[in-house]
Amino acid sequence: MSAIRASIVGGSGYVGGELLRLLASHPRVEIGQVTSESHAGQRVSRCHPNLRRMELDFCSIADLKPCDLLFLCLPHGQAVDRFDSIKELAPRLVDLSADFRLKDHAAYQRWYGRPHPRPELLGSFVYGIPELRRSEMRSARWISSAGCNATAVILGLYPLFKHDLIDRARTVAEVKVGSSEGGKASSPASHHPERSRCTRSYKPSGHRHIAEMVQELVGEEPAQIHFSATAIDTVRGILATSHVFLKQCLDEKDVWKIYRQEYGKEPFIRIVKDRDGLYQFPDPKWLAGSNFCDIGFERDRGSDRLVVLSAIDNLMKGSAGQAVQAFNIMNGFPEITGLEFPGLHPA
Amino acid sequence: MSAIRASIVGGSGYVGGELLRLLASHPRVEIGQVTSESHAGQRVSRCHPNLRRMELDFCSIADLKPCDLLFLCLPHGQAVDRFDSIKELAPRLVDLSADFRLKDHAAYQRWYGRPHPRPELLGSFVYGIPELRRSEMRSARWISSAGCNATAVILGLYPLFKHDLIDRARTVAEVKVGSSEGGKASSPASHHPERSRCTRSYKPSGHRHIAEMVQELVGEEPAQIHFSATAIDTVRGILATSHVFLKQCLDEKDVWKIYRQEYGKEPFIRIVKDRDGLYQFPDPKWLAGSNFCDIGFERDRGSDRLVVLSAIDNLMKGSAGQAVQAFNIMNGFPEITGLEFPGLHPA
Amino acid sequence: MSAIRASIVGGSGYVGGELLRLLASHPRVEIGQVTSESHAGQRVSRCHPNLRRMELDFCSIADLKPCDLLFLCLPHGQAVDRFDSIKELAPRLVDLSADFRLKDHAAYQRWYGRPHPRPELLGSFVYGIPELRRSEMRSARWISSAGCNATAVILGLYPLFKHDLIDRARTVAEVKVGSSEGGKASSPASHHPERSRCTRSYKPSGHRHIAEMVQELVGEEPAQIHFSATAIDTVRGILATSHVFLKQCLDEKDVWKIYRQEYGKEPFIRIVKDRDGLYQFPDPKWLAGSNFCDIGFERDRGSDRLVVLSAIDNLMKGSAGQAVQAFNIMNGFPEITGLEFPGLHPA
Amino acid sequence: MSAIRASIVGGSGYVGGELLRLLASHPRVEIGQVTSESHAGQRVSRCHPNLRRMELDFCSIADLKPCDLLFLCLPHGQAVDRFDSIKELAPRLVDLSADFRLKDHAAYQRWYGRPHPRPELLGSFVYGIPELRRSEMRSARWISSAGCNATAVILGLYPLFKHDLIDRARTVAEVKVGSSEGGKASSPASHHPERSRCTRSYKPSGHRHIAEMVQELVGEEPAQIHFSATAIDTVRGILATSHVFLKQCLDEKDVWKIYRQEYGKEPFIRIVKDRDGLYQFPDPKWLAGSNFCDIGFERDRGSDRLVVLSAIDNLMKGSAGQAVQAFNIMNGFPEITGLEFPGLHPA
Repeated sequence: MSAIRASIVGGSGYVGGELLRLLASHPRVEIGQVTSESHAGQRVSRCHPNLRRMELDFCSIADLKPCDLLFLCLPHGQAVDRFDSIKELAPRLVDLSADFRLKDHAAYQRWYGRPHPRPELLGSFVYGIPELRRSEMRSARWISSAGCNATAVILGLYPLFKHDLIDRARTVAEVKVGSSEGGKASSPASHHPERSRCTRSYKPSGHRHIAEMVQELVGEEPAQIHFSATAIDTVRGILATSHVFLKQCLDEKDVWKIYRQEYGKEPFIRIVKDRDGLYQFPDPKWLAGSNFCDIGFERDRGSDRLVVLSAIDNLMKGSAGQAVQAFNIMNGFPEITGLEFPGLHPA
Repeated sequence: MSAIRASIVGGSGYVGGELLRLLASHPRVEIGQVTSESHAGQRVSRCHPNLRRMELDFCSIADLKPCDLLFLCLPHGQAVDRFDSIKELAPRLVDLSADFRLKDHAAYQRWYGRPHPRPELLGSFVYGIPELRRSEMRSARWISSAGCNATAVILGLYPLFKHDLIDRARTVAEVKVGSSEGGKASSPASHHPERSRCTRSYKPSGHRHIAEMVQELVGEEPAQIHFSATAIDTVRGILATSHVFLKQCLDEKDVWKIYRQEYGKEPFIRIVKDRDGLYQFPDPKWLAGSNFCDIGFERDRGSDRLVVLSAIDNLMKGSAGQAVQAFNIMNGFPEITGLEFPGLHPA
Repeated sequence: MSAIRASIVGGSGYVGGELLRLLASHPRVEIGQVTSESHAGQRVSRCHPNLRRMELDFCSIADLKPCDLLFLCLPHGQAVDRFDSIKELAPRLVDLSADFRLKDHAAYQRWYGRPHPRPELLGSFVYGIPELRRSEMRSARWISSAGCNATAVILGLYPLFKHDLIDRARTVAEVKVGSSEGGKASSPASHHPERSRCTRSYKPSGHRHIAEMVQELVGEEPAQIHFSATAIDTVRGILATSHVFLKQCLDEKDVWKIYRQEYGKEPFIRIVKDRDGLYQFPDPKWLAGSNFCDIGFERDRGSDRLVVLSAIDNLMKGSAGQAVQAFNIMNGFPEITGLEFPGLHPA
Repeated sequence: MSAIRASIVGGSGYVGGELLRLLASHPRVEIGQVTSESHAGQRVSRCHPNLRRMELDFCSIADLKPCDLLFLCLPHGQAVDRFDSIKELAPRLVDLSADFRLKDHAAYQRWYGRPHPRPELLGSFVYGIPELRRSEMRSARWISSAGCNATAVILGLYPLFKHDLIDRARTVAEVKVGSSEGGKASSPASHHPERSRCTRSYKPSGHRHIAEMVQELVGEEPAQIHFSATAIDTVRGILATSHVFLKQCLDEKDVWKIYRQEYGKEPFIRIVKDRDGLYQFPDPKWLAGSNFCDIGFERDRGSDRLVVLSAIDNLMKGSAGQAVQAFNIMNGFPEITGLEFPGLHPA
């Protein structure tokens, strides 16, 4: 079997490191180059201590050679700025930044506070959640991986929106997130004495990932996802707690059936709903390094509320793992190739 | 000044330990006795290593002598079971269990799943949140301290409910809580390899503290607080994120004024709302050991939502500190007596 | 290629879970049965939430059928008690308990405080550290996996003892360990409010793993490893800091050569010694789930001291991973089979 | 009683914040000014969220006015550089930097790698550990607070060195430290995804605090403290594990007597040595915010080793608390004034 030669643009960060880890053990991939301007010439293990045995050096983006497919892990804003030169290097690419996630230019302007530099490109990218966009991905040239918080909330709520089961104006979603979401650069907010043991409301409203949730779940309608994000003392992982209000009377068995119908054959979605025990509901704790999205729910007996829990590893299903899953689909490989790691317990 | 002689029934747990710490430095208190059946005869420092210099031994409840005031820190259910004998020992008491928090017997039955053993007593206790019940406390004989999660949510939302500013059917409140909420007894759920780094939905719906929120905020009306609780990797602290929907158009300045009006003179409520920085919103991280409830909010510009953040130390403002504040009110002492510790930073 | 049919006795604990995870993806293994008396009849995912997709149920030890090889993960003391019946079930076995680690009955009595029930068996087991016992393992029938703390210290110091480079009376070794070392059963010591953020000297002297260190490093001589163990707020991982005193003048380059010579071809030992940076010395943080033992050192310029740092994941190289590596050697498989996971960063 | 007017130079960091907290509740202190160049004009709560109610603004060092006593919390190197102008502002001062801790200029050069800018001043400061230097402090003009790691090790070992009970060439001391030791400035090393859950050997040898240990414990002799430091996932706290080798046969009772004799009347040293239980040995976990140094020990029955455990809060007994204790001695106040907080449990 011939391998796909894939290169990584921007490989010194946490997402780049995860991609390297995944691609290194992917049986259908040959890693081409990996770039880092600040670490060009150094071993990749200089940034990724878990990859200490990998004999690969960072190069400058200026030295990139053509390859079969590019993964872009550049800081937000740089992918679009460099896009014209980058796109000449490979017939297909997966962008892991926020630059091309939104389809609608007006939405981009509203949420990002500025016009998009290349609005004509927005329609050319397939949004990167495989469970929603699998068929488009099969023939996609360019894919834009979804935001990590957006992924957690969208996967948790998609069956309910799709089947129009809930009051679209009332959804409240809250994510609890780890520090790796903020990336590799240190700052006062990431300083350990401050970040450790914090329960910090870092974005009670106005988070940009809301735009993706609305795009994928609600569409054109004037509906809303009321979203807040809280930073907690973990490194990896997102737990989204979404409160939705059912339009009709559904019991837990009905809800279960809807999720089973929608996700029953998904390789990376697990419906987690035990009657009791410590592992009754999804928890990102045991998803680190895995590509699973665990989804559970509880019907509030005292009201029309359904609480949906969805958990992912933000660097995996929320980023690098999602990108490799999309890559597998683009290339016709089995979707789980290179993504078999099940997570650790305890961890 | 003569001192109040106060004894603690059930002093080996975490709440009992906090009470001991607070009363030991309270200038108007003489600690009488402190009971523990399993540790009778042992030094209190055997359970509370921070009190290693306190020369006081646990005694059995059978050896309790009359005193001026009793703090009851018994497991839920035991306060009511032993109430007849206990109440003979002191003219006044503060119960820190859940036994006497609800006024309405029907509500008790619904939320606790069984009839109350002594429903006729329910009306005799003053509910223990000083900011709501201060005047009743001044002449109270018996006070029932509020649940910790209830305290955080109620204090955060009280001004909005009082002034009828929000849609009463739509409130969603979610708390992130530390492990000390579960008390001192170890269990599989509290086992460090499992509890560490967890983001565990331990009560998505049906939490008993909802009954207190409804009682204090909503009253008789058929309204609801949609409440969920998530366990995170901290020991002390609750952050309540409450999503409310404004009935009329209020900007942040209006909201600020309402909170200032209601809480401006409260010794233990701080309105925390900076424009920027790491300490912009309430965070229980720097409240450990203090009796403060920090409250902040953010107006969602894209909807009618207001996000209210309220943070407490569950063992202090959520339990022992609240009880000492009530004790001070009952006795006509300045409210902050013995509660001056401001918390640590960093911690 | 025909697969080895392997069963696990005692599979509900943390070590059993790791073994299941490793064997499930091992291309030369067919998992036979896995026992748990308390969970017989339940899915393995009931205990191991990361293995939620594994379609395998626990059975009782009474229902064990013959297989090619048994992994014993029983509590200490039970392996020897059940040994006569267990050994009839498979021609080869790997015991992960402490029952058969020591060769010398007198040493066993001294360190375990009682006579060994079957002293005649002690010589029949090969001690389980592959780097020291590889050739014996190739033809071994029974292997006894090493203690996790012993593994970390022994691997760190073995080249120095082997080449007789240090003062044998003066070695001081201290391990910092995570909570998973204590196993799956909860206790007051593992209660999250107590164990979280602790720096607890749980065994300043007298730890039983010293007996293994002496056996493997020192042999019959009257020499000593001065060992202490401290519990810290991690779940997985051991960092051993060993202070040794050089008999002759060696600089860091000399020491490096000795370690390279001894370990240069070892698939799971990495010499970690960068000049600077965050990943300069071994840290178990990025070893979780991997089978690596990272070893580094620093020469104290002010004295004859050499500080040796060695890091492992206690559940992997310190237990289940070590056992699978030994299993691979016993069966003539490439040593890294099933042990390729490199660890996560950040984690 | 008249109050001492004290000002703080360099009050925006973690040590400055602790000093502010302590002095604000000190009955004999009136806080004069507190300086911060980068936050001049802002409320102190901008840096210290626990002091949100303190009505005090930072000023520039240029605006400092004369006062009774100055606490210097400047970065290392700045205290000496500014010393001539600063010392004119107050008749007495306590310096919390490393600039004036060593008496011997040769030692300073060796450990700090450069000559001291003002070697003639070195003899004018009293070294700041009250338990060793109390009588000199009573009449001191200038005091130099000790390094936090040095304080933990020195207090743990002082009685043994003083009574010449141990082999002076063989002491090995290892500290486990929290992230607040590194101060308030963020860096890649303090970035939460890296620092969280680390067990990082940040200084296996060559730590500058060794110079203080040698100065105070050993004196002029050619003896050594073999010291290493490991960063762990806590914010506050140091546990020093010191391995010493007894010259004569002493059992635990003998050792106990020596510590009792030396420290029995010390207000902030507690000998912690229970027979069993979770609180058997010192643990910095429950010392946060307190000024205690807890000391315990265990006699290794298999050798001549004694393991001494000593725990402090690095920001308190290791810095600001130590400084206030010295301040109390200088002023003839009861030593515990303002330092009564006993620590929290659990925390």
